[in-house]
Amino acid sequence: MNNIAHTDSNNIGKTLHLWVKDLFPICRSITGPGVRETLKYIHNILPELKIHSVPSGTQAFDWTVPDEWTIHDAFIADEAGEKIVDFQEHNLHVVGCSEPVDKWLTLDELNSHLYSLPDQPNAIPYVTSYYEKRWGFCLTHNQRKTLKSGNYHAVVNSDLKPGVLNYGELVLPGKTDQEVFLSTYICHPSMANNELSGPVVTIALAQWLATLDNRRYTYRIVFIPETIGSIVYLSKHLDHLKKHIIAGFNITCIGDDRIYSYLPSRDGNTLSDIAALHVLKHIDPEFKRYTWLDRGSDERQYCAPGVDLPIATIMRSKYGKYPEYHTSLDDLSLVTSSGLEGGYTALRKAIEIIERNVFPKTTVLGEPQLGKRGLYPKLSTKTSGEQIRAMMNLISYCDGNKSLLEVADLINEPFMELVPLVEKLVDNGLLSVKTSEGEN
Amino acid sequence: MNNIAHTDSNNIGKTLHLWVKDLFPICRSITGPGVRETLKYIHNILPELKIHSVPSGTQAFDWTVPDEWTIHDAFIADEAGEKIVDFQEHNLHVVGCSEPVDKWLTLDELNSHLYSLPDQPNAIPYVTSYYEKRWGFCLTHNQRKTLKSGNYHAVVNSDLKPGVLNYGELVLPGKTDQEVFLSTYICHPSMANNELSGPVVTIALAQWLATLDNRRYTYRIVFIPETIGSIVYLSKHLDHLKKHIIAGFNITCIGDDRIYSYLPSRDGNTLSDIAALHVLKHIDPEFKRYTWLDRGSDERQYCAPGVDLPIATIMRSKYGKYPEYHTSLDDLSLVTSSGLEGGYTALRKAIEIIERNVFPKTTVLGEPQLGKRGLYPKLSTKTSGEQIRAMMNLISYCDGNKSLLEVADLINEPFMELVPLVEKLVDNGLLSVKTSEGEN
Amino acid sequence: MNNIAHTDSNNIGKTLHLWVKDLFPICRSITGPGVRETLKYIHNILPELKIHSVPSGTQAFDWTVPDEWTIHDAFIADEAGEKIVDFQEHNLHVVGCSEPVDKWLTLDELNSHLYSLPDQPNAIPYVTSYYEKRWGFCLTHNQRKTLKSGNYHAVVNSDLKPGVLNYGELVLPGKTDQEVFLSTYICHPSMANNELSGPVVTIALAQWLATLDNRRYTYRIVFIPETIGSIVYLSKHLDHLKKHIIAGFNITCIGDDRIYSYLPSRDGNTLSDIAALHVLKHIDPEFKRYTWLDRGSDERQYCAPGVDLPIATIMRSKYGKYPEYHTSLDDLSLVTSSGLEGGYTALRKAIEIIERNVFPKTTVLGEPQLGKRGLYPKLSTKTSGEQIRAMMNLISYCDGNKSLLEVADLINEPFMELVPLVEKLVDNGLLSVKTSEGEN
Repeated sequence: MNNIAHTDSNNIGKTLHLWVKDLFPICRSITGPGVRETLKYIHNILPELKIHSVPSGTQAFDWTVPDEWTIHDAFIADEAGEKIVDFQEHNLHVVGCSEPVDKWLTLDELNSHLYSLPDQPNAIPYVTSYYEKRWGFCLTHNQRKTLKSGNYHAVVNSDLKPGVLNYGELVLPGKTDQEVFLSTYICHPSMANNELSGPVVTIALAQWLATLDNRRYTYRIVFIPETIGSIVYLSKHLDHLKKHIIAGFNITCIGDDRIYSYLPSRDGNTLSDIAALHVLKHIDPEFKRYTWLDRGSDERQYCAPGVDLPIATIMRSKYGKYPEYHTSLDDLSLVTSSGLEGGYTALRKAIEIIERNVFPKTTVLGEPQLGKRGLYPKLSTKTSGEQIRAMMNLISYCDGNKSLLEVADLINEPFMELVPLVEKLVDNGLLSVKTSEGEN
Repeated sequence: MNNIAHTDSNNIGKTLHLWVKDLFPICRSITGPGVRETLKYIHNILPELKIHSVPSGTQAFDWTVPDEWTIHDAFIADEAGEKIVDFQEHNLHVVGCSEPVDKWLTLDELNSHLYSLPDQPNAIPYVTSYYEKRWGFCLTHNQRKTLKSGNYHAVVNSDLKPGVLNYGELVLPGKTDQEVFLSTYICHPSMANNELSGPVVTIALAQWLATLDNRRYTYRIVFIPETIGSIVYLSKHLDHLKKHIIAGFNITCIGDDRIYSYLPSRDGNTLSDIAALHVLKHIDPEFKRYTWLDRGSDERQYCAPGVDLPIATIMRSKYGKYPEYHTSLDDLSLVTSSGLEGGYTALRKAIEIIERNVFPKTTVLGEPQLGKRGLYPKLSTKTSGEQIRAMMNLISYCDGNKSLLEVADLINEPFMELVPLVEKLVDNGLLSVKTSEGEN
Repeated sequence: MNNIAHTDSNNIGKTLHLWVKDLFPICRSITGPGVRETLKYIHNILPELKIHSVPSGTQAFDWTVPDEWTIHDAFIADEAGEKIVDFQEHNLHVVGCSEPVDKWLTLDELNSHLYSLPDQPNAIPYVTSYYEKRWGFCLTHNQRKTLKSGNYHAVVNSDLKPGVLNYGELVLPGKTDQEVFLSTYICHPSMANNELSGPVVTIALAQWLATLDNRRYTYRIVFIPETIGSIVYLSKHLDHLKKHIIAGFNITCIGDDRIYSYLPSRDGNTLSDIAALHVLKHIDPEFKRYTWLDRGSDERQYCAPGVDLPIATIMRSKYGKYPEYHTSLDDLSLVTSSGLEGGYTALRKAIEIIERNVFPKTTVLGEPQLGKRGLYPKLSTKTSGEQIRAMMNLISYCDGNKSLLEVADLINEPFMELVPLVEKLVDNGLLSVKTSEGEN
């Protein structure tokens, strides 16, 4: 059963978690039926999503779209014919993109095809081999230690043959052709924080953005396989993207309930970076700030030399930095409703800031006389000055050259709390605003 | 009796304190006879001061010059006719700009017109209502607690009617038409640090500046009511001020004996800011450094967007940051001779730096041979190198692009200690200097 | 016996120390036979060295080449004719450039010509008087305390008369006429860290540079007397040097075994500074970082206003900052083989960085597919991402605008470890490189 109900901000976290639960069992890879099934699920929620197919063998920058992988079944059986490692029980049991095999091996021979984690003996590791032909199985180290000498029957029933690479794309037009870019990836099997949190939060952001009247920016939202997907997408649209994208986020690892994290664009000082830092600082000043050297997802492509898109990353626990990462322990209990909702909220705030950022300018010289407009306490006492300080601080920086986001950082107030102040001051004729595009 | 004796640097602090004492009893407001009496006192010391009048109702930017307020008498009497709160005893007893009243009230009715400070039960608070008609009385909280139920006779004998706003202006011409601007305010009744310290220190600075031969800059010095006064002054002279002012200070809260404080211009990096920081760093490295967000006086107008004058502030204990602020406790004991003298000296040093700042340039390539000019110890020993280090550090930065003030900060020496070194090196033909105006 | 064997990197420290030992006994000053003997020794090792002579009286910027000083003998004898202080025993016993004297004095009279260090009673201080005629003797404070009343015979048998100032110059041409400048000084008598370490390390660097095929830069290496030598050299070559020098080092105090030190150019951010900081950071993060205000050697001339050459300094224990400085304790035991080798290595690394610095640029958009080139582990596991992180970090910054040195600092890897990576990536067609000169 699909949980396609429109997101409701009252229970957004719960809806996001149900979506993760729906998508969890699908065995995704960078190509193949698991990706298509996932995109179909998303399409049911976002009917405007376009699903694209790119043939195997297509050149994309330095890369070639690989053959498509289909996994039908895989298991290791013992001499008695009992399946002791079974893909049907957990997608992670088979190495991603394993070539077909059907043979008997001794334990010694089998061992070179087995992967386990001695330090996390209860975890099945996640291992892939996209660009070299091999096969293998992953299992818990505890199970591995029980394997006895003897012969084992290893079967991988898979196809690896020319097909297509699929991705989903949704463009929500705005008043201008300047674009905000959201990218997430749909190639990870049966792991929750990395990576079903990204797709479901992105679905919810797309739903919310679709409801906005008068979007200033056009929103370009893609659901792609990591690395090869972003490279394919960039290779098809690079000129357009470089010309139009003014901000964007790579959405990943956004669903657990621990820390908030930030990873910069390569430039480090784009609008996306400034908005992300602003949001996280006001959500939790203790958020973890990574550097470009800690990167590891599609910002590697979006911010590569010569590509240089302004893409930053807001996360909860970052890939590679939490113990359950890339194992079967990254599951439906690690990702929580509140974790997903927190991540969704942080990203939504960052997008709202970008969408609503303006360059405000005072219309009067000197401070305005707020009293005659009912904007100022009329009785001057020892403390009344403090009460309107935020408004006066705001006005004091509205010189037409600083964006509201810059002013918010200068006066250390949350951007969204300044928005109604700006509106009130515009209504009272004390501020004029223009967008960065110089529309007004 | 006026203490008009010319300031003598040997007892400048004492003179300043006598002036504060003279001016303390006058009941100033933003308009009215108290301002005129204060300006007349200043005019007696600075005969060149011009006193200007601007009619009520005059528009100034977003503001209108208010009606003039004259207070004749005010008291609260009990049923026995005894005056229990009496304006004649302390100017702060009546709310500033109170409208006339003459009626009997119950204690409950009276209470909504009374102001006291529970946390400072011995202090009469300073309360004003410039832009809304109301009346009220201020009293110590200790006295307020003694008030018994009953009827009280509240009388405010005041006028609030069209008149003028007054301010004083003194222009001391220099060799160039570039100007240094000094502004202080004369609208606070019967408080000493905030604000009689500013006017008396400004008087002394004007006296000192008048004695300077060959002033490089023109000095524009104004004694105005706070806020409405600076707005009126800016609205009349904005183009001239923007074109000519190269530095300046708002002079306030400069008379107590505690900390030194600095509040930046909005820009934060003007010549005034750099000079102020240099001076305070060398007077007391522990000086308090405020930010633009802590502003609260006429820099709000002088540095407003579109005005953008380079006005910084050097203070002792900053308004709003000392317990006696805006109460009757800010009195003649809080402000001291040494406190005033320290504040005067700091501001004078900052002005001297601005006046004497030059761009020095070496006339020889490589280090000069100081020995043959008698500028260098002739015997090289282990320690002799240290003795002339300041001079050599100075020379090492004299590339014609850095001002002497920048060099002083680079080599961490007080500006004024470098001035005689520069003169000696110029006399020896080793440095040439030009002013920022490119005169030379 | 001269230790002229070509430096062998296996025992470079030992060779350097032998050279120091050879040169130690020579009584150098800023002019005279000691300088010539020293230059002759260097010429034996570096046959291409040109030895120049500049006549006394020659003008150089603000300076005049002084008369040449020759010391034949000097002693203080007691009444019994016994030499109690004898130049033949230690060069430091006579004040540098002492004028001739031959007279009997009382102890009181003699005392005004004696120099000793009460705080270092076993050290003979180093004292000179280059530009004022005087004579004097230096001795340990312990010896001085033993001097009894009586008459003493003071004899200085020296000449101070017109002659020449000598210096050595070696130019190693490179592919371009852009130059790297190395300067050291040969005017200090019988002290080891300051200053025989500088000349011997510079000799070894010159030997190494001479062996390099295809030097990109031309290397200009000078052995000069400090101060007057650099001033003379600058005055003769300033236009050429300003036009061609792109980096360089003043080489001094580079032989003891304690700390590493850095002293910046006046600019502070030249290629020389960045290379020096990079090298020292990776040798020992605890290296001592001085400022321009701590300068004291020929950078005073090379970086003077109007000269402005990009000359930085890498040292071991800096002049003036170690207890043995400018005394007889700065001897052959203070300077060690390992100390000299460490200093040599640090300077050589800095020069190698300058020589090999390039501006690399990726040839592909997005990340390259390293796997198909055998540059990437083919199996993706939890940890394999870390293994190639340095290479990917490097590539991620190769935008053609950042030098390899800048990239090395950005990704916090030693420059020289990146060089083979760049070569491998160039070989694989993934990077192109150009030099700052835009050759390619």
